[in-house]
Amino acid sequence: MTILAYGTSAGDQPLAQMQISRRDVGDHDVRIEIAYCGICHSDLHQARSEWAGTLYPCVPGHEIVGRVAAVGGHVARHKVGDLVGVGCIVDSCQHCAECDDGLENYCDGMIGTYNGPTADAPGHTLGGYSQAIVVHERYVLKITHPEDQLAAVAPLLCAGITTWSPLRHWGAGPGKKVGVVGIGGLGHMGLKLAHAMGAHVVAFTTSESKRDDAKALGADEVVVSRNRAEMAAHVKSFDFILNTVAAPHDLDAFLTLLKRDGTMALVGAPASPHPSPNVFNLIMKRRSLAGSMIGGIPETQEMLDFCAQHGIVSDIEMIRADGIEPAYERMIRGDVKYRFVMDIATMG
Amino acid sequence: MTILAYGTSAGDQPLAQMQISRRDVGDHDVRIEIAYCGICHSDLHQARSEWAGTLYPCVPGHEIVGRVAAVGGHVARHKVGDLVGVGCIVDSCQHCAECDDGLENYCDGMIGTYNGPTADAPGHTLGGYSQAIVVHERYVLKITHPEDQLAAVAPLLCAGITTWSPLRHWGAGPGKKVGVVGIGGLGHMGLKLAHAMGAHVVAFTTSESKRDDAKALGADEVVVSRNRAEMAAHVKSFDFILNTVAAPHDLDAFLTLLKRDGTMALVGAPASPHPSPNVFNLIMKRRSLAGSMIGGIPETQEMLDFCAQHGIVSDIEMIRADGIEPAYERMIRGDVKYRFVMDIATMG
Repeated sequence: MTILAYGTSAGDQPLAQMQISRRDVGDHDVRIEIAYCGICHSDLHQARSEWAGTLYPCVPGHEIVGRVAAVGGHVARHKVGDLVGVGCIVDSCQHCAECDDGLENYCDGMIGTYNGPTADAPGHTLGGYSQAIVVHERYVLKITHPEDQLAAVAPLLCAGITTWSPLRHWGAGPGKKVGVVGIGGLGHMGLKLAHAMGAHVVAFTTSESKRDDAKALGADEVVVSRNRAEMAAHVKSFDFILNTVAAPHDLDAFLTLLKRDGTMALVGAPASPHPSPNVFNLIMKRRSLAGSMIGGIPETQEMLDFCAQHGIVSDIEMIRADGIEPAYERMIRGDVKYRFVMDIATMG
Repeated sequence: MTILAYGTSAGDQPLAQMQISRRDVGDHDVRIEIAYCGICHSDLHQARSEWAGTLYPCVPGHEIVGRVAAVGGHVARHKVGDLVGVGCIVDSCQHCAECDDGLENYCDGMIGTYNGPTADAPGHTLGGYSQAIVVHERYVLKITHPEDQLAAVAPLLCAGITTWSPLRHWGAGPGKKVGVVGIGGLGHMGLKLAHAMGAHVVAFTTSESKRDDAKALGADEVVVSRNRAEMAAHVKSFDFILNTVAAPHDLDAFLTLLKRDGTMALVGAPASPHPSPNVFNLIMKRRSLAGSMIGGIPETQEMLDFCAQHGIVSDIEMIRADGIEPAYERMIRGDVKYRFVMDIATMG
């Protein structure tokens, strides 16, 4: 089956429309007609070969929402016409401890939605900037939001679960003081989710201008992290800090805000290292610096269901497929509130 | 009450015998005639002003064992003649969350056994390289080991609890694979304790020559960390790694050995930073890099009781008080198996 997609054949070439093929629907497969695909910073890194190992042609996109167009003979969970989503994972080994625990994101054999090894042509996975995708049913999520919210649901499949998983894992909820560092695609979801979980939420931003926005997104308090007095007022007070900033920065400024046994989890990986954190700041209060990567399939479904119940979606700006390059440039500048979503119907 | 001690009046002066005074025994105080005091690397850092803020005269020593010589009128836990110990903590606020949880080591008002603020002359605490000490009963530990092991019990008060606390906190025990990095004063206790807790213990050392010693101390396996093939055989397999090495080193070499949700806890703080750890190594398996500092009073008692029951003491080399400077020099070279202990009876 041949479809249209947006991708590139080299790291120095702009994305353009191309034709790609999708495999036939196997017994456990779901074919999805894609309606929208969110634009993640990872897409840009991969397309432009800023990470090692990009395979071309490269079709990014792992915040996929659409409607089931066909299902294989053994598929029980999904049926034609269902609203569904696909995130960053389209396959995994299905038999390791991680898969057994529903944490396919940590499976050594996890296959990413793009640039992962596959038997399908061209030998690596091609992502959601495309009209359709065929995915094993295990990695297909049900969407119960109203259909008119579908585009704004797309970013939940990466930005949503990437913040949900660590917030849940480290116990964000009533009685807990939770920080969210950075108010971008990930951070804005972190604020919404932590607030809905019932935590006392403090947003950290470098921009005075984001103060009101952060409150509107769910922050109980906003701290401009360049302001030493504001930072000092929160020393040793946080149970958990979700740090969404991928740019290298001073981790100690936030580690010192954790109370005893507090954890700061990083969900962004910088291209060059953060300044090395001061070990005393870990030792003095038995603090932890941790990382977290996306989330497992069951918890992604849990997050989507929670968001549907709480009316949570991403704040998005819709783009046409041929608007992807300007969108990337604006994303680099942080000029988006808070996630671009591609309208796949604009291809062709 | 005036007694003899070993201390120094300046960072560039060798330790020498001096007279110091101890306060009268208050209602909640215990006066201890000190028999032995272990020699911790921190003593040297403090005496030589290698850490900021050393107050002089400086009398180091926080691995104190001896016999109760007097008790205050309200002291119920200890009586004259008891074998007791004092570790790194001689006071704390006694009313914060940390103190309430028996984690006085994390109390913001924790007073160290030396160089801490006190109303006693000379205005800062003086440690265990001395004939006697007066300490609030809360911070005095019971020793139930046979008296002939008393000298070898001394290092349990710092090296023992500093390794016990993180091993317990992060669940070392049957079914868990635990690494201990560095086989010095702390590491050798880590090996003994983790082994006695029932964990599968792997020792990491840079010295091929320590292989047999590490096994004798309790390691099930020994890995020479400079050997890439040996390290690679343990990738993604550890539940917990206790890292006792204070010298700056490559943390990623050990972080990558942790399985999903594994933690590496640092108990040594380097004078200059470790190379910054690769955030990907935290993110990829939801790993944590943590710190831990000494331990609380109740868990110190628990550790001492456990060690008495399991016949665990430190491996020590006894020194005379006037042998402290050569001992420091040997300690700097790592030339001690595995802890020096000062025989306080050699003063005078």
